[in-house]
Amino acid sequence: MAQPAEVLVPYNDLIIDLAGILTKLGFSEDRADRAARLFADASRDGVYSHGVNRFPRFARALRNQIVDPKARPVLVSQFGALERWDGRLGPGMLNAQQCMERAIELSSANGIGCVALANTNHWMRGGNYGWQAADAGVIGICWTNTMPNLPAWGASDPRLGNNPVIIAVPRADGHVVLDMAMSQFSYGAIESYRLKGLPLPVPGGFTADGELTSDPGAIEKSYRPLPIGYWKGSGLALMLDLLATMLSGGRSTHEIPGDPEREAGLSQVFIAIAPSLIGPPERVNQIADAVINNLHGSKNAGVAVRYPGEQVLKTRSENLSRGIPINAAIWSEIHRL
Amino acid sequence: MAQPAEVLVPYNDLIIDLAGILTKLGFSEDRADRAARLFADASRDGVYSHGVNRFPRFARALRNQIVDPKARPVLVSQFGALERWDGRLGPGMLNAQQCMERAIELSSANGIGCVALANTNHWMRGGNYGWQAADAGVIGICWTNTMPNLPAWGASDPRLGNNPVIIAVPRADGHVVLDMAMSQFSYGAIESYRLKGLPLPVPGGFTADGELTSDPGAIEKSYRPLPIGYWKGSGLALMLDLLATMLSGGRSTHEIPGDPEREAGLSQVFIAIAPSLIGPPERVNQIADAVINNLHGSKNAGVAVRYPGEQVLKTRSENLSRGIPINAAIWSEIHRL
Repeated sequence: MAQPAEVLVPYNDLIIDLAGILTKLGFSEDRADRAARLFADASRDGVYSHGVNRFPRFARALRNQIVDPKARPVLVSQFGALERWDGRLGPGMLNAQQCMERAIELSSANGIGCVALANTNHWMRGGNYGWQAADAGVIGICWTNTMPNLPAWGASDPRLGNNPVIIAVPRADGHVVLDMAMSQFSYGAIESYRLKGLPLPVPGGFTADGELTSDPGAIEKSYRPLPIGYWKGSGLALMLDLLATMLSGGRSTHEIPGDPEREAGLSQVFIAIAPSLIGPPERVNQIADAVINNLHGSKNAGVAVRYPGEQVLKTRSENLSRGIPINAAIWSEIHRL
Repeated sequence: MAQPAEVLVPYNDLIIDLAGILTKLGFSEDRADRAARLFADASRDGVYSHGVNRFPRFARALRNQIVDPKARPVLVSQFGALERWDGRLGPGMLNAQQCMERAIELSSANGIGCVALANTNHWMRGGNYGWQAADAGVIGICWTNTMPNLPAWGASDPRLGNNPVIIAVPRADGHVVLDMAMSQFSYGAIESYRLKGLPLPVPGGFTADGELTSDPGAIEKSYRPLPIGYWKGSGLALMLDLLATMLSGGRSTHEIPGDPEREAGLSQVFIAIAPSLIGPPERVNQIADAVINNLHGSKNAGVAVRYPGEQVLKTRSENLSRGIPINAAIWSEIHRL
């Protein structure tokens, strides 16, 4: 099958174009620039599904007043290194960036900081906030709940969210950043295997009859993707939602509209930890390098052995030099916004 | 196949017997009692593999001077709500209990508290420290690294630990406590399927030829259990080790002896968060109940839909009333210690 046509857009041009559209959709100039950068950064780093590809849906959310472009998060309550914020249904990526920034500030004052955010919206690529923490030299941990889109282990109807969690560790030669949702494959990934006529590389969900399957089309029909580790990912998804809701006081997955076009009012948690405040800073990097070197010494059994985020700097460098690849149809759609 | 013969030992008698043996092995009386309770609590709650069943191995570790019964953890450094402790190779379960207690104290002063512990030993049942936090009315998160016992995704030799993580949420009608390792099945679970002549319920590792398999014997031969979610659990295991090592300044998985009888000097993290300090305390319980009720409303597709820890209170109650079931051979072995 032919690859979809792509255009290559220089990173800075991409930001200017997206920011211009966001300004037309109600953003102030500085906030349009910040949001545009977060979309561009995701695509620059190879996370196309949560970068520019998602911009049209975000524009619809603005037009449908699901997202309020002017709303800024406000502090609701705080105690020590723990804070609760209200996102006031503003742009999820700006709310998330600000809350991770605040968690980093709290960590520099307290060693660890935790910000819980209610009433926010989809943060697009969660990894952005992990990189943000690692760029600031601290460990970042954050997660979001989502609309119900994942059946619990033993269930056939989706009552859990696929609640992505990000864990980021700073490292001079490339941060180590895990960015993973609770389903084994996203619906986007499942669709792309089906379109290529390929089975999933490992079982990724159930048939309508409840049999485990690697057939992407069967999972799209059953709406039963698989939680990672079966009962384990199901349990972890529940815990992440519980924690986000209890800490933020916001909506739990079961209170979020189960429609991607209307998903709104999410709950998120941002934690930053500064290991260099309790130990020799130069050791932090040595430890990370030693762990990565040991991993890379693994006996290979077919698939490359990589650390989470290992490909990002290479992809980033390529995309910055040749231009960010964008699906041509999506790029046209964006320019009609 | 016949079930192994069991004895039923009253909970308090069990504690007295185990504490007596620990005193002979070098524990002070109060510490023997605390450690004995942690073994008894695990078996009382149905986690036999990490309760009394593991006591003989722990006794060997004391005799072999892997664990120093008299060593107590000391504070190494602290900054705000973040502390680093040295476990001085003392009993892992006492070190862990004390560090979670300290994290809880830090959370009551700062909203959130984090204690990183180096040079400790196997904590036995990690869930004990989650229940400890939830019993204190706070969210508890803790994890440990382990010796190398899990190949990374794409690798055939074990360089990751199966690093269990515990997340606990307080709830009046029963805490919600996730206690999970990074391998889909423990070696103990794999063995028990083989002994019963049953396949694993889902693929749990690789054959010697690198094929995914549900055959427990094949996984025991290849030493290649499967990380939960394939590449995802592999990445999460790496992150948990990195965080534990960077925060504690202790040993990473690759520095820990790869032999269960000599596994020592682990690194652990204990985090406590007090949601009731930033929101109405009565809401915390309502939120947990609403999430659990929604989960229980799932359409059942064969397996019971349960929250993490759901069976614990029932098992606890049964075991407290009829006596803690203990494998008769292990119970004899313990009495010869």
